[in-house]
Amino acid sequence: MIEDTANTIDTIAAPATAPGTAAIAVVRVSGPDCAQLAQAIFRASLRPRQTSHRAYRDTAGSVVDDVLVTYFAGPQSYTGEDVLEISTHGNPLIAQLVLDDLFKRGCRAADAGEFTRRAFLNGRLDLSQAEAVMDLIHARSARAIAAANQQLRGSLGQHLTRLTDELLLGLARVEAYIDFPEEDLPDEDRVIVVDILNSVLRGTQQLLATHRYGDLLREGIKTVILGEPNAGKSSLLNALLGRERALVSDEPGTTRDYLEETVMVGPHCLRLIDTAGLNPTPGTVEALGIQKTYERIEEADLALLVLDANHPAPPLSAEVAHRLNPNTTLVVLNKVDLLQGQPPVAEAPDELPALPLSTRTREGLTTLEQRITEIADRFRPGDAGDQIAINARHADALRRATDCLETALANLRSSGPTELLASDLRGVVDAFGEIGGRIDNEAMLDRLFATFCIGK
Amino acid sequence: MIEDTANTIDTIAAPATAPGTAAIAVVRVSGPDCAQLAQAIFRASLRPRQTSHRAYRDTAGSVVDDVLVTYFAGPQSYTGEDVLEISTHGNPLIAQLVLDDLFKRGCRAADAGEFTRRAFLNGRLDLSQAEAVMDLIHARSARAIAAANQQLRGSLGQHLTRLTDELLLGLARVEAYIDFPEEDLPDEDRVIVVDILNSVLRGTQQLLATHRYGDLLREGIKTVILGEPNAGKSSLLNALLGRERALVSDEPGTTRDYLEETVMVGPHCLRLIDTAGLNPTPGTVEALGIQKTYERIEEADLALLVLDANHPAPPLSAEVAHRLNPNTTLVVLNKVDLLQGQPPVAEAPDELPALPLSTRTREGLTTLEQRITEIADRFRPGDAGDQIAINARHADALRRATDCLETALANLRSSGPTELLASDLRGVVDAFGEIGGRIDNEAMLDRLFATFCIGK
Repeated sequence: MIEDTANTIDTIAAPATAPGTAAIAVVRVSGPDCAQLAQAIFRASLRPRQTSHRAYRDTAGSVVDDVLVTYFAGPQSYTGEDVLEISTHGNPLIAQLVLDDLFKRGCRAADAGEFTRRAFLNGRLDLSQAEAVMDLIHARSARAIAAANQQLRGSLGQHLTRLTDELLLGLARVEAYIDFPEEDLPDEDRVIVVDILNSVLRGTQQLLATHRYGDLLREGIKTVILGEPNAGKSSLLNALLGRERALVSDEPGTTRDYLEETVMVGPHCLRLIDTAGLNPTPGTVEALGIQKTYERIEEADLALLVLDANHPAPPLSAEVAHRLNPNTTLVVLNKVDLLQGQPPVAEAPDELPALPLSTRTREGLTTLEQRITEIADRFRPGDAGDQIAINARHADALRRATDCLETALANLRSSGPTELLASDLRGVVDAFGEIGGRIDNEAMLDRLFATFCIGK
Repeated sequence: MIEDTANTIDTIAAPATAPGTAAIAVVRVSGPDCAQLAQAIFRASLRPRQTSHRAYRDTAGSVVDDVLVTYFAGPQSYTGEDVLEISTHGNPLIAQLVLDDLFKRGCRAADAGEFTRRAFLNGRLDLSQAEAVMDLIHARSARAIAAANQQLRGSLGQHLTRLTDELLLGLARVEAYIDFPEEDLPDEDRVIVVDILNSVLRGTQQLLATHRYGDLLREGIKTVILGEPNAGKSSLLNALLGRERALVSDEPGTTRDYLEETVMVGPHCLRLIDTAGLNPTPGTVEALGIQKTYERIEEADLALLVLDANHPAPPLSAEVAHRLNPNTTLVVLNKVDLLQGQPPVAEAPDELPALPLSTRTREGLTTLEQRITEIADRFRPGDAGDQIAINARHADALRRATDCLETALANLRSSGPTELLASDLRGVVDAFGEIGGRIDNEAMLDRLFATFCIGK
């Protein structure tokens, strides 16, 4: 007899807080054994959601730590299963001793994202909400947090439900004629279905239009800082970093490069692209780097051109100048503290928007932050409502939905076969469904949850 | 009218978990405003110790995050005050936004150790228990955790209470005669008091004897690794590190040097002293480093002498040899995997205990760890009971108590003035009391709690 273990849900455990010395650390356990584990470890039956102060005793009966423990009875828990949250003293070794003991008692170390995966599989979150959890954890700006919060509350899912419901009305009209292949879709139905598809197409494109803003929130605003070496590029960087340095450097797992080049400006996060060789005076741009430099300016969401306000601006090479978009470029006239009340000598080239600033006295820094925020906020499409900002996976599904919708509209124009029309519309429904997770693709779920952190 | 603000307790807030990306982060709040803050932020009255899932709304009414929040009504809380524990998504930026909002609502950023200081001031912990909290957080080995757990449960305090109670019986007999200066202590009382003081002195010395073990637990076992460069010192270090590397490197705030030289061996933590220049063959010991090298061997709790088992051992210089304590030295005969079944060629000098090992195959590593554990456990005095392991502050107070007890015993032998005798005994009571915190010294408390981490 072969035992059926494939569908047995085991109990998983993992640290839920960042490693390091602190007041407390939390270990999280999820699965069917939680109540029994609590009984064995704490020698007490825990009331759901009631936090109690207990001695954690290991399998040998020794006290590992005095902990706070909270038991969540499924399905009213994060994962939808029974859950224990054990809050130990904030010593990574104690958390490890607790985990070692839980493993000895039969728990398995949770895979990355496995708690959230279980929450999804148990219907506590749809897939876009599960992604929002990850977005929240990795968000590097207030706007990114706000967008992730919206998505966690299901705003994207609600949009898609509305679009799907609308589409299903059209699909119902089409499918009514599938069983009568000799009959064409009557004109009155055709008009209604075309209207529906056009409306759904507009909604889909509005969502798609939020992808760039989504990238901007998730990746940070790609920013190049240009200017002569002595104009104060590094000082500007340091002045911007100065305000939020502590927060940014709290982040482990990011590389040193990333740390030094990411800065929060108001509610946004700027990702500073390496500007080595980005000097706009042609004589100093190294020949080998020129093409790469141009590409970086083109790819950037934002360009900051730093000039010394006390001297006439050096001429911008035409190759650089025509790549600077006046809507996403700010000229910083630096060192205004040395002007002694006189107007800046330097002028912004090509009538690019300019603002005076002193990295030394920090004069003008708040205005610069406001201008950057205004530019960044312009990437947010106003018409998709709320703070929706889709990711690459959503965009991929929405593009497929768009293709199907356009094929369907062409079919309607040319009075093509109703079966094909219906099949295209079902393709749209499927594409919308994928975003929320109505898919049957284990490999895709593996890939998605593997990007999560352990313990989530 | 001058407002009396000196005694107003404010409400403090701080992150309670280590910074970094993780599943969750916890922010802790303590003070009289907690219930009112919960009402304003979560728009609900929270039942004590009942964990609930809520939207955290900032002063502008915007959702910062979906959190789990638990309210602890004082005095049944860690600090003895009203406490909120807010569990956010594990993004340092979200924790910071929550803290910024709490500060806007009138909370103050907690000083290092301020939660535990309040717990002490509110009688939830005595001072030795507060120190045990810090010991727990910084413990680097299972034995250190066990000792800190004992102290947190009040074992040191209970010992001192017993000694104090015993002493007070003697003091009562002495003080009965203070009002009658013309009368000497009667011989029968003198005998009883001498017995009491001797018993208390023994108890005090037993506690004092745990200081070295306490140091060993708190600082790690100071270990020198000696041996010729090609004998495998570094390989041994790596082999020991290999097992527990992940745990040790979890610790931020420790220097890189410390990281590389701290290793868990069984239930103990070894602190590896820089062994540069510790080569025992005199020709290669650099002249300048010799004296320092000798000092390090003398200061070490443990010495590991690594020899290549395949060659005759190089002669040990007399200066090194006579500094190696056979009770705390282990000779590692390394590279036994190359012996092809033959007995080791190298012999341990001076009949020091030796064990065969291969850092390559890891043969003998478990035995080495057991031997090291045995040696380390020998530092634990058996007669002070439990797992008591006092710290430097305790030792200082106990030494003063010892001085007073010895002065008192001398006084009794020479029939000195009863007032002086009583004063000495009160000195002992005070010294014992200091350990638990019955002291009136704000500066000492400042110093002690400043060594805590923020949020504890």
